[in-house]
Amino acid sequence: MTLAIQRPTLLIDEAICRSNIQRMKERADSAGIIFRPHFKTHQSAQIGAWFREAGVEKITVSSVEMAQYFSQHGWYDITIAFPYNPLEASAIDLLARDIKLGILIESEGALAHAAKHLSSPIHYWIKIDVGTGRTGIDERHFEMLSKLRKSSNSNHHCAGVLAHAGHTYQQLDMNSVRKIFEESLRLLNAAREMIGGDILLSYGDTPTCSFLTDWTGVDEMRPGNFVFYDTMQYDFGSCSVENIAVCMVCPVVAIHQDRNEAVIYGGAVHFSKDFIDREEGKYGILVKLTDNTWEKQPSGGLIRLSQEHGIISGDPDYIRSLRIGDLVGILPIHSCLTADLQGSYLSLSGNVIAKMTKV
Amino acid sequence: MTLAIQRPTLLIDEAICRSNIQRMKERADSAGIIFRPHFKTHQSAQIGAWFREAGVEKITVSSVEMAQYFSQHGWYDITIAFPYNPLEASAIDLLARDIKLGILIESEGALAHAAKHLSSPIHYWIKIDVGTGRTGIDERHFEMLSKLRKSSNSNHHCAGVLAHAGHTYQQLDMNSVRKIFEESLRLLNAAREMIGGDILLSYGDTPTCSFLTDWTGVDEMRPGNFVFYDTMQYDFGSCSVENIAVCMVCPVVAIHQDRNEAVIYGGAVHFSKDFIDREEGKYGILVKLTDNTWEKQPSGGLIRLSQEHGIISGDPDYIRSLRIGDLVGILPIHSCLTADLQGSYLSLSGNVIAKMTKV
Repeated sequence: MTLAIQRPTLLIDEAICRSNIQRMKERADSAGIIFRPHFKTHQSAQIGAWFREAGVEKITVSSVEMAQYFSQHGWYDITIAFPYNPLEASAIDLLARDIKLGILIESEGALAHAAKHLSSPIHYWIKIDVGTGRTGIDERHFEMLSKLRKSSNSNHHCAGVLAHAGHTYQQLDMNSVRKIFEESLRLLNAAREMIGGDILLSYGDTPTCSFLTDWTGVDEMRPGNFVFYDTMQYDFGSCSVENIAVCMVCPVVAIHQDRNEAVIYGGAVHFSKDFIDREEGKYGILVKLTDNTWEKQPSGGLIRLSQEHGIISGDPDYIRSLRIGDLVGILPIHSCLTADLQGSYLSLSGNVIAKMTKV
Repeated sequence: MTLAIQRPTLLIDEAICRSNIQRMKERADSAGIIFRPHFKTHQSAQIGAWFREAGVEKITVSSVEMAQYFSQHGWYDITIAFPYNPLEASAIDLLARDIKLGILIESEGALAHAAKHLSSPIHYWIKIDVGTGRTGIDERHFEMLSKLRKSSNSNHHCAGVLAHAGHTYQQLDMNSVRKIFEESLRLLNAAREMIGGDILLSYGDTPTCSFLTDWTGVDEMRPGNFVFYDTMQYDFGSCSVENIAVCMVCPVVAIHQDRNEAVIYGGAVHFSKDFIDREEGKYGILVKLTDNTWEKQPSGGLIRLSQEHGIISGDPDYIRSLRIGDLVGILPIHSCLTADLQGSYLSLSGNVIAKMTKV
């Protein structure tokens, strides 16, 4: 690694990113559906520009602040895929004056509040729970969908039904993805029928969007994580290790040869404490760094995290080869949360890639 | 709650904070030992000032950036309680020109590198592993301590032996704290003897510092979390719920009465995904907000988190009383990581409390 990295740094391989974007765009195009990628994963105007160059014009975000940020960077068609927050009504209203804004509604109360407090044109999506049990209207309550059909505000239009199948976040094969998809489609169609009218059906999560080829019945896909992928998606089978576009580069600060472990500068405040149960490193895959990139060969894992410390475990010979002040690479378990924790990213050629920051 | 909160916001009760600081300062004073609190929990110059007003002059931090930040805010005696990172040598050297800087050493390689690359005066502490198995020299390798006794750089002095008993992070009683403390003291004394000379013994973690009254044999304590405390420390028995000085205030965005759950705007990017196994809400305790503070009565818990969503579960009547756009309070599971995720904090009187931000 010839890059002058001194602290935990998220390295981004632009070529892999762009090819992940291109591949997903082609999947959507060949299915003939709208591609509205979720930008919560990268939160970066510069990476957003790579999407635009691939022909993307519509995006999804997860907060009003993120919608403001991307609107300031020239995006005009944004869905905030998070339940309408009445407390942010003014900010939403202001934003919807300038751009085509979609929001999520899942109750009469939310629809009525929006109708009263948002004077700008609003495209609202009705959130359907397709089995994740987080947000959205589940099948037992579909009778209330008729009440969400129309807003009392003539500027507000129902755009469609929308779902996120969060329960695909597990080890998958084509068959199980298709089963979840078919059940989701049944529910979304039933919901759409209950609402009536010419409305769209929006679906998507990275595992499904990575596996599924036949999208009949769906109008729009909204994957997010695929732009980077990560160890979790690799374990789920959504991607190969070569598709992972991000690598946390961390200094080695202590070696414990007798435990086959080394301590790195890189902890929960850099990676997040998200994890999945996996034999070798529940927080990520250890890879070797070469020149300005990383070898696509797992050689151990990130097994423990405290606030600033990480513990890596690896092959005894590899651990023996390490010296303090060396840099090691980790493919993070969940790139969305790892990326969120960064102030900025670094490209393989050493350029800072700016992103949204917290206020 | 009369504060104009629209998004997830970490509310800080200054009075509780100050009383946590005062109480711990008094514990150190009455034990006759140095109080060097860890500032990684709050990362705020303004909260640092509350410590200064309580008579604190020496502090601990967990990164070079944090040392730079607090040095810029008038702190002159700082220990970076993280293994020396050779890649940050220039920044460390620069800092040590201006302030009394302590660093952590745990290998001959690190000591030699520091000797060669840091020309400024350095106080180095030798990190001892007292059973946590993270960093530090463990008993089987104590023979190598003699090699760390003296630096080849006459500007560098061994300040003492230092340990963090991370394995106290569990449910505790006075007896188990004392057992861990006694074993740690045995190891630290053995290490000090091996090194020789007039050096100090530095110890401390919030559970031990909250329980232990007899500090005979220790020269310095370095707790951090106690300034805020949190649900985890409450469960460990380190504090009462009245001692918890921070509360995440989050908008309710959806109600699922049939599951006795509500969805809040407040997810992994606000709380962190750290958790402990506890029956009611592994990510935190749900409390009711009253005027500009919170009731010290648990009324449910934060049970699931995704990137921006949180799911709270509570008493059916309480969930029934909620409306979208209401604010709820959560005492976070791990305040250090929750605080790290904030751009700033809010006081009960509605003032923004600034903190370090990520670059």
